[in-house]
Amino acid sequence: MTTKNANAATAASRTGTPRSNTLARVLTALVLIPLVLALVAWAPRWLFSAVVTLVAVAALREYLALAAQSGLGPLTWFSYAATAVLVFWAPLAESPALLVLAALALAARPARSLEKALPGAAASVLGVLYVGLPLAMLSDLRRLFDGPRWVIYVLALTWVSDTAAYFGGRAFGRHKLAPRISPGKTWEGAVASLAVSLAFGMAYLAWMRPDMGLAWSGSISAAVNIARQAGDLVESAVKRGAGAKDSGSMLPGHGGLLDRIDALLFAVPALWYILSLRVSWLLSPF
Amino acid sequence: MTTKNANAATAASRTGTPRSNTLARVLTALVLIPLVLALVAWAPRWLFSAVVTLVAVAALREYLALAAQSGLGPLTWFSYAATAVLVFWAPLAESPALLVLAALALAARPARSLEKALPGAAASVLGVLYVGLPLAMLSDLRRLFDGPRWVIYVLALTWVSDTAAYFGGRAFGRHKLAPRISPGKTWEGAVASLAVSLAFGMAYLAWMRPDMGLAWSGSISAAVNIARQAGDLVESAVKRGAGAKDSGSMLPGHGGLLDRIDALLFAVPALWYILSLRVSWLLSPF
Repeated sequence: MTTKNANAATAASRTGTPRSNTLARVLTALVLIPLVLALVAWAPRWLFSAVVTLVAVAALREYLALAAQSGLGPLTWFSYAATAVLVFWAPLAESPALLVLAALALAARPARSLEKALPGAAASVLGVLYVGLPLAMLSDLRRLFDGPRWVIYVLALTWVSDTAAYFGGRAFGRHKLAPRISPGKTWEGAVASLAVSLAFGMAYLAWMRPDMGLAWSGSISAAVNIARQAGDLVESAVKRGAGAKDSGSMLPGHGGLLDRIDALLFAVPALWYILSLRVSWLLSPF
Repeated sequence: MTTKNANAATAASRTGTPRSNTLARVLTALVLIPLVLALVAWAPRWLFSAVVTLVAVAALREYLALAAQSGLGPLTWFSYAATAVLVFWAPLAESPALLVLAALALAARPARSLEKALPGAAASVLGVLYVGLPLAMLSDLRRLFDGPRWVIYVLALTWVSDTAAYFGGRAFGRHKLAPRISPGKTWEGAVASLAVSLAFGMAYLAWMRPDMGLAWSGSISAAVNIARQAGDLVESAVKRGAGAKDSGSMLPGHGGLLDRIDALLFAVPALWYILSLRVSWLLSPF
């Protein structure tokens, strides 16, 4: 998988043509988006958690392949189990010490190469916290008052801003944003993404929470957009650093699942922290 | 430092003589133990936290050298800052997502090698959570009712069981416990360590909490001892995996500081979890 993708990456950067099929991409989105929205709005809590857990485990599989390709020797089954427990059940997030000590003890066991004790434990802990924890936070977000609406807000903002970056970049893109890790991205696309996120987020929150001022809804949407763009770049860097272009090829035309959710892995914690702080002081001005 | 230590390790395993000077070891202990006990018993909260923070940062320095030697390219200043904040202030422990996202974003920044994005973030996050979090828990433990006594319990249990393992191993040691990572350790030493921990822990807790039955005080002491021995082995594996014998040479005759506190890095979380559970059900039978 990875060798093929690395070749594809080289070919793509040589010819300048995007590898993904636009039709397949649009069709997959047309099927997936209504399904996801229905799930967020109406699924019982256990079903939503179960689906998010499956997404986390599938994305973790791609992360573990990248970590293995970087020579880190991650713990496979332990990482799956810890991620599933974390996303479905969550108390692990409040006590990462248990995760860390178990990962170290397992990574240092006699059956493994001693050189992989530290790198293997480190890669496993990072995988569970990078992929699993934000998805646990997504489940947690949905349990809030207005939870499903906050989840749709962060998902929709992520999709809308991705599309804005793509078309904004195609129309106006001249200055490369991060040529080393994501050659297609431009500063113009990033600004388009931020502008459209602001407009969308302020409109959505004005509908969802008419009592929230535009300064708040704009700040929240800007913060989530910036986190989302950082998440996208970080995943590209991790992927390129491991020598792959796509993290996997699960969704037709969309590259890997990790590629699809990379923005959410930063956007969800950003929103989660903002809403946590809200409890003490952010809500008061609303 | 590390090359010298690696040579020393080879020499020591060849000749079978321990490298550390016993007199220096005993003298250092005779100075340090009363100082530590006084600090635990009488220091104001800020001073105790400050000393624990310094210990964490100094031990992290040795961890970062091991991680760098393993080729992981950890983030130095970020790891120090995150550890200091965590140990001195603690809320980071309840929100590892912030730590993880910041580490990923910094490890993927343009000034660094792309190949070190994932390994560098992973090694930094593990360092903060492996070295910093247990020491944050030690500060937290001291804030409990009877906190200083619990801290002295876990410190004393660790010292007593280390000494028991050493002399028990010297007197009766025949079966190697983990020849690959710690050639001096024997199963006989491990059993002596457990037995002496049980005796010491049951006596100490009978004095500290006369209402606690021997079944509880024995179970707690056994759990802390097993965690403590695991912590010792894990640190040896990490060290050997990186090609070093001692993690540093800060304390005369005692190897590195990380070597000195490796047992605590597992024993403290074990006791912390036991006492956290106690709140709901462990205390009721006392």
